[in-house]
Amino acid sequence: MTHNSNPTGPGLAGTECLVLGAGGFIGINLCRVLSVAGASVCGYGHAPAFPAALPPIRWISAEFSDRATLAGALEGVDTVFHLLGASIPAHAERDPAEDLRSNVAASVDLLGLCQTAGVRRIVYISSGGTVYGVPQSLPISEAHPTDPISAYGIHKLLMEKHLGLQTYRYGTRVMILRASNPYGPFQIPDRGQGLIATLIQRRLARRPVEIWGDGRIVRDFLHIDDLVDAMLRAAAYKGSYSVLNVGSGIGRSVLDVVASVDTVLGTKGAEILHWPGRAVDVPTNVLDVALIRRELGWEARTEWMQGLRGTAEWIASACQPAPLALRSTGPLA
Amino acid sequence: MTHNSNPTGPGLAGTECLVLGAGGFIGINLCRVLSVAGASVCGYGHAPAFPAALPPIRWISAEFSDRATLAGALEGVDTVFHLLGASIPAHAERDPAEDLRSNVAASVDLLGLCQTAGVRRIVYISSGGTVYGVPQSLPISEAHPTDPISAYGIHKLLMEKHLGLQTYRYGTRVMILRASNPYGPFQIPDRGQGLIATLIQRRLARRPVEIWGDGRIVRDFLHIDDLVDAMLRAAAYKGSYSVLNVGSGIGRSVLDVVASVDTVLGTKGAEILHWPGRAVDVPTNVLDVALIRRELGWEARTEWMQGLRGTAEWIASACQPAPLALRSTGPLA
Repeated sequence: MTHNSNPTGPGLAGTECLVLGAGGFIGINLCRVLSVAGASVCGYGHAPAFPAALPPIRWISAEFSDRATLAGALEGVDTVFHLLGASIPAHAERDPAEDLRSNVAASVDLLGLCQTAGVRRIVYISSGGTVYGVPQSLPISEAHPTDPISAYGIHKLLMEKHLGLQTYRYGTRVMILRASNPYGPFQIPDRGQGLIATLIQRRLARRPVEIWGDGRIVRDFLHIDDLVDAMLRAAAYKGSYSVLNVGSGIGRSVLDVVASVDTVLGTKGAEILHWPGRAVDVPTNVLDVALIRRELGWEARTEWMQGLRGTAEWIASACQPAPLALRSTGPLA
Repeated sequence: MTHNSNPTGPGLAGTECLVLGAGGFIGINLCRVLSVAGASVCGYGHAPAFPAALPPIRWISAEFSDRATLAGALEGVDTVFHLLGASIPAHAERDPAEDLRSNVAASVDLLGLCQTAGVRRIVYISSGGTVYGVPQSLPISEAHPTDPISAYGIHKLLMEKHLGLQTYRYGTRVMILRASNPYGPFQIPDRGQGLIATLIQRRLARRPVEIWGDGRIVRDFLHIDDLVDAMLRAAAYKGSYSVLNVGSGIGRSVLDVVASVDTVLGTKGAEILHWPGRAVDVPTNVLDVALIRRELGWEARTEWMQGLRGTAEWIASACQPAPLALRSTGPLA
């Protein structure tokens, strides 16, 4: 193994960390690991979907737009993990101007509050799957042009630029992780958020699989444990880079993923319903992860089938299929 | 001369053009030339500061945020010149989140309305002086990284990306002109908008010149006639590029400009008060204009001293100095 198995070292133990969006998929996983690493953690966000899964941390249930509460939460904080407003790409597409007015403006406001509070470090999850747009070369390195073909990707890029400004102006240490498609426990199926979770849920329920397009679009899937590992290393990083890809570096088509899930579940012959392809979907996205490997000593360690198996076990135990009337009937995210 | 002296040719004569922000500095100049070129012009915006300067065009006095009026104005329009929300960089700095909520969100909304109305072409004035950030090489080509050090520059870049999306999704013909610092008649002094206008006004009034920093920052100044020429050519362009620099390609320090103005006005020994330099100001900005020269056959034709002289004549005749109590006491923009 080339990586450090305790990446946080003295970097995070005992430091004050605020996790914005702590109740979501990435947030729950992050809080668990931060807590084990000895950081002093405060979670901020909507009430968590799985409260029992959270370690004993301080918790603030509030809206992101609640400036007074947010300002209070930031007092004495060393490191902010910003995971808010990142969940549902389709919302930004439906009304990009509204996404700017609410979600993005609140994110920009946060930066001003961080500066006032003297926050030293911000770790931000950007979107390696959307900020680059249609790839001109594969795998996609951090130097690739950024011409998103989705409002979601544009707004992620906007936040990256505002974070860069924060560093330029105030010296705030910013780490932008351009993550590929994360999957794993605590990603709730049928929320338009994760293909793998939704796919497993449907196959467990023996329901047809609905996908956009012909299923040949290729994505880079990253297990949440690996993403969280990268986040902790990023928070402790002392080097000069501020934008890093985080992905498996391996491309898999949607049809490949369906086949893998069938193998893990022991199911066969998924009925696949094809919906028309979406304009927001780039044909292929696979990230070049040489830079993060070199700078953070990080690599994706979770073996694919094992990662799927753990995800399937979590979904089978934690996510009872919703009553039929509540089920989404749309294609997978 | 390598350029076409009638750049619009059959491209714009008789076509329906909507100029958003027609009452401002660039808008007035553009409407005058469009009108001469035979385009059917409608101006949209706040009541113009110099109504007598406008040619006989249709006019809609309305806010940019008035969606219903804007939607009506777009009906039957072939080409939109989008100059709105571009005037005062300092506003975006003061409250970037608010700039997103109002100004930028309205600009993004506009794109949806353009698509609904079937607008074929959008010419957008971006900011060659701010989207690139601190230059890594000079002169700055369109391929230079875009890492603005001002919220204004970031929001210009955001609009560029949304315009690119409009082309990708709907095939709208978009021309983004990354303009350097325009100057010339109808730029009103003391509005935080144009260094040259403010400088001339102060020297005419024998008032001290106040500048940010030591006066050694270098900018690329572009006469408004040349910018408008580029806009008309861009509107008629059939090639494949959508982002073009527009500048003189010549760098001049603020102190050089002060000296040139003194020469033109026959004044001497300007008293210069130095304010602390601003974080938003890049040290140098000079644009590489090889691409626009090749693609549009355009070049900056206005001779520097002659451009200053015409500007000074306009300011002397049109801009009576404000009463002392109303005068700005801050540094030049």
